[in-house]
Amino acid sequence: MIRFNSDYTEGCHPAILERLSETNMEQTAGYGEDEYCAKAAALIKEACKAPGADVHFLVGGTQTNVTVISAALRHYQGVITATTGHINVHETGALEACGHKCLTIETPDGKLTAEQIAAYVDAHFADESFEHTVQPKMVYISNPTEVGTIYQKAELAAISRACREKGLYLFMDGARLGYGLACRENDLTLADVAEFTDVFYIGGTKVGALFGEAVVITNEELKADFRYNIKQRGGMLAKGRLLGIQFLTLFEENRYFDISAHAARLAEKLKDELTKMGIAFYVDSPSNQQFPILPDAVLAELKEKYTYAYQARVDESHSAVRFCTCWATKEENVDALLADIASLL
Amino acid sequence: MIRFNSDYTEGCHPAILERLSETNMEQTAGYGEDEYCAKAAALIKEACKAPGADVHFLVGGTQTNVTVISAALRHYQGVITATTGHINVHETGALEACGHKCLTIETPDGKLTAEQIAAYVDAHFADESFEHTVQPKMVYISNPTEVGTIYQKAELAAISRACREKGLYLFMDGARLGYGLACRENDLTLADVAEFTDVFYIGGTKVGALFGEAVVITNEELKADFRYNIKQRGGMLAKGRLLGIQFLTLFEENRYFDISAHAARLAEKLKDELTKMGIAFYVDSPSNQQFPILPDAVLAELKEKYTYAYQARVDESHSAVRFCTCWATKEENVDALLADIASLL
Amino acid sequence: MIRFNSDYTEGCHPAILERLSETNMEQTAGYGEDEYCAKAAALIKEACKAPGADVHFLVGGTQTNVTVISAALRHYQGVITATTGHINVHETGALEACGHKCLTIETPDGKLTAEQIAAYVDAHFADESFEHTVQPKMVYISNPTEVGTIYQKAELAAISRACREKGLYLFMDGARLGYGLACRENDLTLADVAEFTDVFYIGGTKVGALFGEAVVITNEELKADFRYNIKQRGGMLAKGRLLGIQFLTLFEENRYFDISAHAARLAEKLKDELTKMGIAFYVDSPSNQQFPILPDAVLAELKEKYTYAYQARVDESHSAVRFCTCWATKEENVDALLADIASLL
Amino acid sequence: MIRFNSDYTEGCHPAILERLSETNMEQTAGYGEDEYCAKAAALIKEACKAPGADVHFLVGGTQTNVTVISAALRHYQGVITATTGHINVHETGALEACGHKCLTIETPDGKLTAEQIAAYVDAHFADESFEHTVQPKMVYISNPTEVGTIYQKAELAAISRACREKGLYLFMDGARLGYGLACRENDLTLADVAEFTDVFYIGGTKVGALFGEAVVITNEELKADFRYNIKQRGGMLAKGRLLGIQFLTLFEENRYFDISAHAARLAEKLKDELTKMGIAFYVDSPSNQQFPILPDAVLAELKEKYTYAYQARVDESHSAVRFCTCWATKEENVDALLADIASLL
Repeated sequence: MIRFNSDYTEGCHPAILERLSETNMEQTAGYGEDEYCAKAAALIKEACKAPGADVHFLVGGTQTNVTVISAALRHYQGVITATTGHINVHETGALEACGHKCLTIETPDGKLTAEQIAAYVDAHFADESFEHTVQPKMVYISNPTEVGTIYQKAELAAISRACREKGLYLFMDGARLGYGLACRENDLTLADVAEFTDVFYIGGTKVGALFGEAVVITNEELKADFRYNIKQRGGMLAKGRLLGIQFLTLFEENRYFDISAHAARLAEKLKDELTKMGIAFYVDSPSNQQFPILPDAVLAELKEKYTYAYQARVDESHSAVRFCTCWATKEENVDALLADIASLL
Repeated sequence: MIRFNSDYTEGCHPAILERLSETNMEQTAGYGEDEYCAKAAALIKEACKAPGADVHFLVGGTQTNVTVISAALRHYQGVITATTGHINVHETGALEACGHKCLTIETPDGKLTAEQIAAYVDAHFADESFEHTVQPKMVYISNPTEVGTIYQKAELAAISRACREKGLYLFMDGARLGYGLACRENDLTLADVAEFTDVFYIGGTKVGALFGEAVVITNEELKADFRYNIKQRGGMLAKGRLLGIQFLTLFEENRYFDISAHAARLAEKLKDELTKMGIAFYVDSPSNQQFPILPDAVLAELKEKYTYAYQARVDESHSAVRFCTCWATKEENVDALLADIASLL
Repeated sequence: MIRFNSDYTEGCHPAILERLSETNMEQTAGYGEDEYCAKAAALIKEACKAPGADVHFLVGGTQTNVTVISAALRHYQGVITATTGHINVHETGALEACGHKCLTIETPDGKLTAEQIAAYVDAHFADESFEHTVQPKMVYISNPTEVGTIYQKAELAAISRACREKGLYLFMDGARLGYGLACRENDLTLADVAEFTDVFYIGGTKVGALFGEAVVITNEELKADFRYNIKQRGGMLAKGRLLGIQFLTLFEENRYFDISAHAARLAEKLKDELTKMGIAFYVDSPSNQQFPILPDAVLAELKEKYTYAYQARVDESHSAVRFCTCWATKEENVDALLADIASLL
Repeated sequence: MIRFNSDYTEGCHPAILERLSETNMEQTAGYGEDEYCAKAAALIKEACKAPGADVHFLVGGTQTNVTVISAALRHYQGVITATTGHINVHETGALEACGHKCLTIETPDGKLTAEQIAAYVDAHFADESFEHTVQPKMVYISNPTEVGTIYQKAELAAISRACREKGLYLFMDGARLGYGLACRENDLTLADVAEFTDVFYIGGTKVGALFGEAVVITNEELKADFRYNIKQRGGMLAKGRLLGIQFLTLFEENRYFDISAHAARLAEKLKDELTKMGIAFYVDSPSNQQFPILPDAVLAELKEKYTYAYQARVDESHSAVRFCTCWATKEENVDALLADIASLL
């Protein structure tokens, strides 16, 4: 089987395993208070041009989302998210289990707009009995979104302004951030992300690491006591250096960006070639997740050789599916997939 | 610095890193639904003589404790624990953050007794207004305990009977289970643990793995829908195979037990030699955590070369501290420590 | 000011105050374990033709909703509700604060259908990674709904069948149940409601009481330990007899139904007369909440003399508003309102 | 039966029922935004000499405790309480159900001291891994305590200073505050309580009202958005005026203090006379709860005619029980009880 169903099908960049092996028998302090974490944090702050930021390393995405969001909110406050947001759909109510409501906004493409956010907050406070509804206090966006779309710099800047005017925190889920920044439509830098948000994370699990997400906090209000929250939400890894070593390796020698670029190029190849074949897409994604609409008969054939994720039924004989590329994707596999689709059509 | 402060100062057993490297570029399904997890689970069930058990792999101890306990309880139910229990003291209220109260019982040595448990439950239901207090529904014990003590087979059997008579689930936190089973006072087997408890976990983080805890569920009532709970509490690792590969490696070739025996032997050497020097202990621990009472002046000197964990002040000039051995401890370091203490006394 | 904005603007049926005065200096047991609660429960079970039901009295609607729902659900389970459901909109996230997600379904009129519910559950379990989403386990409906619509017997029976087939509990919020059962389009009885649901409540706060909601539980699974939940959610009134006395008074001499009929008749008069004036309605409500669409200029004039609740802007010069009748509404006030609207149009 | 088991066995002060009857058919705004609540709040602020305070009315004690405490705390923070504190023992884990841990301190008499509080906080921050334990942020005391003891002005002032030095909020549960302020050992005023605490409540349920607790917030940090918390925790009464009318009636004509004095006088009579009979007490309570130690044989006889609350077994043939007086207690009943005990001894 050749797997395209997700971007976490392989292990990690080989340099990480080498570094883990080299350092394996070293003794270090636990819980992220070792020198590898310190060095990795320093590299990340440099990459973000955010020397004053706090950087924390957590294990996985759901854990990171609930830790960041619940740390920021009081009990009666909620987080604005696209209805399709990961926190609203695919985390088994982890955020609600921490007591907080997802305040959902419908979007055509997984992206919130500054206007939607401002309107939501205005409507909340315009309601005579606003205390009977959850107070919006944070905005959650992901970049790329669940459907692969990305924010342009102007869009993110506008959202940032809206959040600051309305007194909301802006949090970006960057589980696939590398893939977003590497795609050809992108005009954002890591420094822009750090500037426009109050807190965001740089995904490792899907971008070259065995696991790990690096949280970057720039807003002073969100820095205080953050480690209590990590511990309470089960995210404080005993051997925290495992996270430090991984992010250190990824942020040395431009690895994080290079491997992201690899995935982006292959996704673009996939998109371009499928487009040439006349295939339509469920959503116009510029990043490493592609959602072509294919005949069910073709999909049934492909299933013998490839894995993909089912997305949605489009009509009686067509479905949208998801193919992902990642840091580990082999170009020959993309070529084989394209050839097979071409021959099946 | 030579670190004795905890049993998670090194990486992992080298065989694990080898296996991770060998399998690194394989593509597998995510979230623990790969063949490595299946094989590891099979080995663990065999080792537990519990073919009908469910085995799940989680990342760390706090996460595992809250996932297991909150999965078992209704909102108004709580868990009985020694006051010194990890869940009551060292998890930043993670369990309370899931809505459940720790129902604490004072113990001299970190161990609950069947009598204490039965009396607690009887007192609850004897209270006219019992609905005004949290209903006890689970018992949490750790073996070894936080202070290194272990349960004898007869003690565990009695607790198990008490729990079944009173309608409570029995959960054993086995973060250091290997070290408990390997020490010379122990008369329990893994199969006994599986028989006497409803759910327990086999610690990997402290016993040879990079990270990971293997939850073994034998009670049918606790099996249903457990994976929802793992996901909700942030414990479902995307690359779940990392856990499968680690436990597979640990449970092949008797590794888990061999490396535990190594740590146990060195702890016993430490204990025996310190005893010969006339040193008293804060608690009589048979396992890999030793709590000698040392003169503050000696501790101040030791601090230049070794790390240890501070436990408690004993008198004006003496403190109890903790030294841990683990799978990775070098005998030469134990010898050096013993020699230094001897010369400092 | 003449208030039509809600149905809780007055105190209570005078017979209740008389009874409270008569019994005021009696000494009784607390927490609902007095004879008045017992008698009221007996009358309610009789009215519901549900001799085996458990009846509990709570103070208010939000409290009742969270107590019932959180008592029924495990941590990873959620409740299906119309997007407009009270629990999803107007309880400041009280249910999420107990850890549970509202699983929302869009409706044109606030009413769920059996088909929607079955489809939701089927889609959940058809998803390969269903454990990544909240498991549906209960359905919440209100009758009348937030917009005054009511369930016909055939509709409720179908929902009930769907819930039982899919393994869901059915819970009806009956904050305004009296007004629903009393309106001319209704073909349900209290006994039908008891038969088709697993748990429901009979609203007192809006139907003649000072406060109070009577929870009726017919499903054995939901009966166990319910009083723990009441206490934990803050709903166990010390002087529980206040609730017993109120419901006893309401369910004697057919009062609950008679006063509901009064409100229903006045609402129908309001609806019929406004319709004759050519006024359209935001939603076709048969019950005590009416949502006419009126010119903003007319509303501005009315505001000097009457209160109403703002519902929604309809076009540049028209808005939908809500007028409520209740057990205490004076017919002369309805007549005055109708006359004023007629003259302003 | 003559009930002495609790102080909520009767209804309410007759003046309250009169006022409820007089105002019954008035139409008012809901949710505490009516003029009766405003007037009652004004009277309470005057009585507290705290013109800048915010006053909110809730229904019951458990609800009030969880609302106040959870509003003040972040997720990872807990509340220091005596082990015997109501929130730790008799609220079915309501606070834990909101996510917060009770940080318990053992006391001989239910009263915390400034020294204990300071030491607790110092120990927390002195711990190297303090982030692994719940951060103390609030102190909960009740006055009178669960066992009837009261704080002297100097004690409360010292606690207040300790809290301010250590950055903790001080919250007083005043469910029985009137009875505490009225007893002969008391040297506190309502104004002192307002000055020394950050938030406290004046109990109505046990002191003359049908139900109701008046929360007084003096610390600006705790004022913001408090009504969201009331709504979320299920404490926002639809007909909020019921609370306003009751507290208005209690704080007019010195009623709250006069009826408290009545209860205090009868409790003192009970205590003095029992003491003269040579009866010892389980705890030396100066307030309306008295805990005599009586022979089991005497208690068995008394049970035929009186109710009391069981407190604890003292020796093989003696138990401590609780007798409460309240605003409604008849002196003739106290006299009868004393006579019966005297004759039974």
